[in-house]
Amino acid sequence: MSPSVEELPLTWLRDNCPCPRCRDPRNGQKLFQITDLPTDLALGAVRPAADGVEVDWAPDGHRSVYPTRWLTAHRPGTGGDPGDRRGENGKTLWTAADLNGRLPEAGWAEYQGDPAVRARVLESVVGLGFAVLRDVPCRPGQVLEVAETFGYVRETNYGRLFDVRVEPDPSNLAFTGARITPHTDNPYRDPVPTLQLLHCLTNAATGGGSGLVDGFKAAALLRAENPEAFGVLTRTPVPFRFSDAHTALAADRPLIDVDGHGRIREVRFNNRSIGTLLLPAAELEAFYRAYRAFAEITLRPELQLEFRLLPGDCLIFDNVRLLHARTAFEESGARHLQGAYADIDALAGTLAVLRRERAVAAGKFVDELAGLFAGEGASAYLGEEVTMAQHMLQSAACAEQAGAPDALVAAALLHDLGHFHGPVSGEELMQGTDNRHSHTGADRLAEWFGPEVTEPIRLHVAAKRYLCAVEPGYFDRLSPASVHTLEVQGGPMSEAEVAAYEANPYAADGVAVRRWDDEGKDPEAPTPDFGHFRPLLTALLRTG
Amino acid sequence: MSPSVEELPLTWLRDNCPCPRCRDPRNGQKLFQITDLPTDLALGAVRPAADGVEVDWAPDGHRSVYPTRWLTAHRPGTGGDPGDRRGENGKTLWTAADLNGRLPEAGWAEYQGDPAVRARVLESVVGLGFAVLRDVPCRPGQVLEVAETFGYVRETNYGRLFDVRVEPDPSNLAFTGARITPHTDNPYRDPVPTLQLLHCLTNAATGGGSGLVDGFKAAALLRAENPEAFGVLTRTPVPFRFSDAHTALAADRPLIDVDGHGRIREVRFNNRSIGTLLLPAAELEAFYRAYRAFAEITLRPELQLEFRLLPGDCLIFDNVRLLHARTAFEESGARHLQGAYADIDALAGTLAVLRRERAVAAGKFVDELAGLFAGEGASAYLGEEVTMAQHMLQSAACAEQAGAPDALVAAALLHDLGHFHGPVSGEELMQGTDNRHSHTGADRLAEWFGPEVTEPIRLHVAAKRYLCAVEPGYFDRLSPASVHTLEVQGGPMSEAEVAAYEANPYAADGVAVRRWDDEGKDPEAPTPDFGHFRPLLTALLRTG
Repeated sequence: MSPSVEELPLTWLRDNCPCPRCRDPRNGQKLFQITDLPTDLALGAVRPAADGVEVDWAPDGHRSVYPTRWLTAHRPGTGGDPGDRRGENGKTLWTAADLNGRLPEAGWAEYQGDPAVRARVLESVVGLGFAVLRDVPCRPGQVLEVAETFGYVRETNYGRLFDVRVEPDPSNLAFTGARITPHTDNPYRDPVPTLQLLHCLTNAATGGGSGLVDGFKAAALLRAENPEAFGVLTRTPVPFRFSDAHTALAADRPLIDVDGHGRIREVRFNNRSIGTLLLPAAELEAFYRAYRAFAEITLRPELQLEFRLLPGDCLIFDNVRLLHARTAFEESGARHLQGAYADIDALAGTLAVLRRERAVAAGKFVDELAGLFAGEGASAYLGEEVTMAQHMLQSAACAEQAGAPDALVAAALLHDLGHFHGPVSGEELMQGTDNRHSHTGADRLAEWFGPEVTEPIRLHVAAKRYLCAVEPGYFDRLSPASVHTLEVQGGPMSEAEVAAYEANPYAADGVAVRRWDDEGKDPEAPTPDFGHFRPLLTALLRTG
Repeated sequence: MSPSVEELPLTWLRDNCPCPRCRDPRNGQKLFQITDLPTDLALGAVRPAADGVEVDWAPDGHRSVYPTRWLTAHRPGTGGDPGDRRGENGKTLWTAADLNGRLPEAGWAEYQGDPAVRARVLESVVGLGFAVLRDVPCRPGQVLEVAETFGYVRETNYGRLFDVRVEPDPSNLAFTGARITPHTDNPYRDPVPTLQLLHCLTNAATGGGSGLVDGFKAAALLRAENPEAFGVLTRTPVPFRFSDAHTALAADRPLIDVDGHGRIREVRFNNRSIGTLLLPAAELEAFYRAYRAFAEITLRPELQLEFRLLPGDCLIFDNVRLLHARTAFEESGARHLQGAYADIDALAGTLAVLRRERAVAAGKFVDELAGLFAGEGASAYLGEEVTMAQHMLQSAACAEQAGAPDALVAAALLHDLGHFHGPVSGEELMQGTDNRHSHTGADRLAEWFGPEVTEPIRLHVAAKRYLCAVEPGYFDRLSPASVHTLEVQGGPMSEAEVAAYEANPYAADGVAVRRWDDEGKDPEAPTPDFGHFRPLLTALLRTG
């Protein structure tokens, strides 16, 4: 329910007027200053409008129309907008055990070719703080191309890209074989680069393993265990300094940065580049106690996610959240990474655009389904007295009446999608060639629905063969057409097939869909239209 | 006085150990983790060392040597390090009256050719928030070259550079002829680009003037006048949003960002891109009151610094401090700016490197002066019984004894520098050719000293001619050599010359230096050495 406009904060409501005098229709930008609004702003007449509310404003007579959908989605005090997801509230905090053996990763080819894979990788960087791309070509400079898939390279004193390998006169310990404990990079920059990429070209050295620590998790632990230390670290500007022959950088920033609601937003942690704090002695003592407490947490074994970058791996990580580390390696061994910095705002923006495009494609996909139901769906259903569309809609209605979860209602609705447009049509199935429609349907749907929808569909033919084998009387209840196709599909299951079927985690769901399939063949039954199921389908779509 | 090491915070002191086991001598980076220090750290033996203190640490037996100079410069509780100068404490806040007719500016050629000019321009950007370069070539893309003189271009969805001119289907109001009220750019990015450059290629339109407002000043006024509103704006994350066909950006950040000590650090202000806040109603009311109060301050006439960018002008400004604006212009008129974003950390780093280099050059310059005193200075002083060096050192000693300000002591010390190495030497002056040594000396010194040193030097010969004209008995006290050169230099001043001399703001200082010049010719007087004046000179050097 949207609240009545009379209950909404006045200036807020007016500031959100969507009319073309208030917002440029070309780009959505606001066309007035807050100071342009009357100081004695008041609601005049309020009238219902088509799908919304029309408001006349006093004293200036401006008129606004607020769509009901907008009012519902933007109720004050509710979280309609997920926000920029930069703070801990927009993240999934982790310890090593949460991710060991399950690194967020994808192949370079899939990442490039499939928007859904790209969205998943970028979501991992936003939510978990990192992702690994595999099989990225081991070409020098390739890391820049990776960065440009989601944003813009941030050039620094280290260049547009930097080589991480042993150097004879290193300006930074990164360019030696030394162990480097968990840290963030470039804390002496402000703004600090918020993303780092490390692309492994060679790693034949003994040692040289990689490690990641979730700095937000470490900070959250500090807050839970030692709130005083947490407070000190959020309030104390730390002088980060870096200087070499060509560079002199300084940033005075806290180790833990929180937003106005006290939520962790950024972590900077780098023992190597902390300069000399000049606080009063008592504050120095408090800072050093807190700094040590935080450092100890970052070194806890359970926080260390350890792995080895292999040639072709490109690690992308949030440099204001994750601490990265490497074990020492023999300087005689070949180890060569190329790194680059970038920013997470552009990455999150790329993800948002991918999702927006995916949402548009999802809408088109549901439209296509509706078209199939209205078109091919109107043809006869393989020797039954209902059309294909009637059959599937009735099956879904049965599932709905049975109180089935949404995913199973969708599975019932779409279970025979494989009969449409397939290389072997339903007609051919009736003529003795199995069109494997359960599989083709499930495969076509997998781009848009999760296994909770597709797997029961995949099983609904097997479920018939299964029930014929295990349930006395089931066969007798089959329709003549179904008996006919049973033979083409392989007949009742053997004992071994029954065991295999029962081992499938979706076995019961397949049986459930099968039973609604069998029920949905009544020419007299009331049949909801496709539009009835549209919201349920839309909510189940995997839009990224 | 440095405190005794026993009074210093223990962990802090140890964390700052400068030994090569604690800090990599190649790059100054710290080689240990804070957790590597013993938890029961204690001072063992403390001994004086050459120019410092040697400390044995318990229980691990580590030994540190702290130079006295370091201990003095880094006393806890004192501000030895100026910090990153990102907060209001590192800035000079201004209203329009402070800068009207005195914009911080420089010509492109001087900026490129003279490190001191470059340092002055960059200092203006750090301290005042902006500077204007004049006569920058009106070439498309030139703005990128300007950015690269001090840092790195920050690419955004608008490109590496963007054209600000009227576009047929603008993604942003910037690309129309509309008036744009004071605002910061890109608040929907995080990190927001901290610098903006705007290079004017054409401005023939009616209207299209530029304006700047010191957002830190506006925020400081808000804090003074309405502390509650200031607090609300520092705590409330504001949803900044931007979206076009290819972009969807979001950053939830406060309008005023303060550091851990409550000092203003960043301002974001852009009415066009504030999305819908979803706070509880009471917080929305408070936010809108505060937002309006701040907006009203940013529009106060006394804060609007207005000027017109002409072709060749390149404005560089701090985009997290200054609000920029433009008046409306006729879309039919030609107005074309090219803009780019960059970051202020690199700019401040470039400034720091320039100053470091200038400090090295300054040290060399003082060494050169010392060399001149020891070398050429040992030669006879034009018919007097003292050497050149003796004469100048005695003059300076007289000034010092008279309690003169440091600048005049320096002027007395260096007043005859023009006799050294000049195209016409002192010998030639004695033979009848004026070497104009007062001017050549002042000009040579102007790179390193301000007018308070150079102008009295420039006047010290004129002051002799002046005193001969106005002070009865002065001529009679001149040394025979001085009488001789008076003629070559033009003799006593005419009435018109006297009036002109007296109009010079440094007239009295020139007379003062003249009198110490006349005194410093005593072969028997004790004479300090050059080293005695070295600290005074060093403190007066313009190191940028």
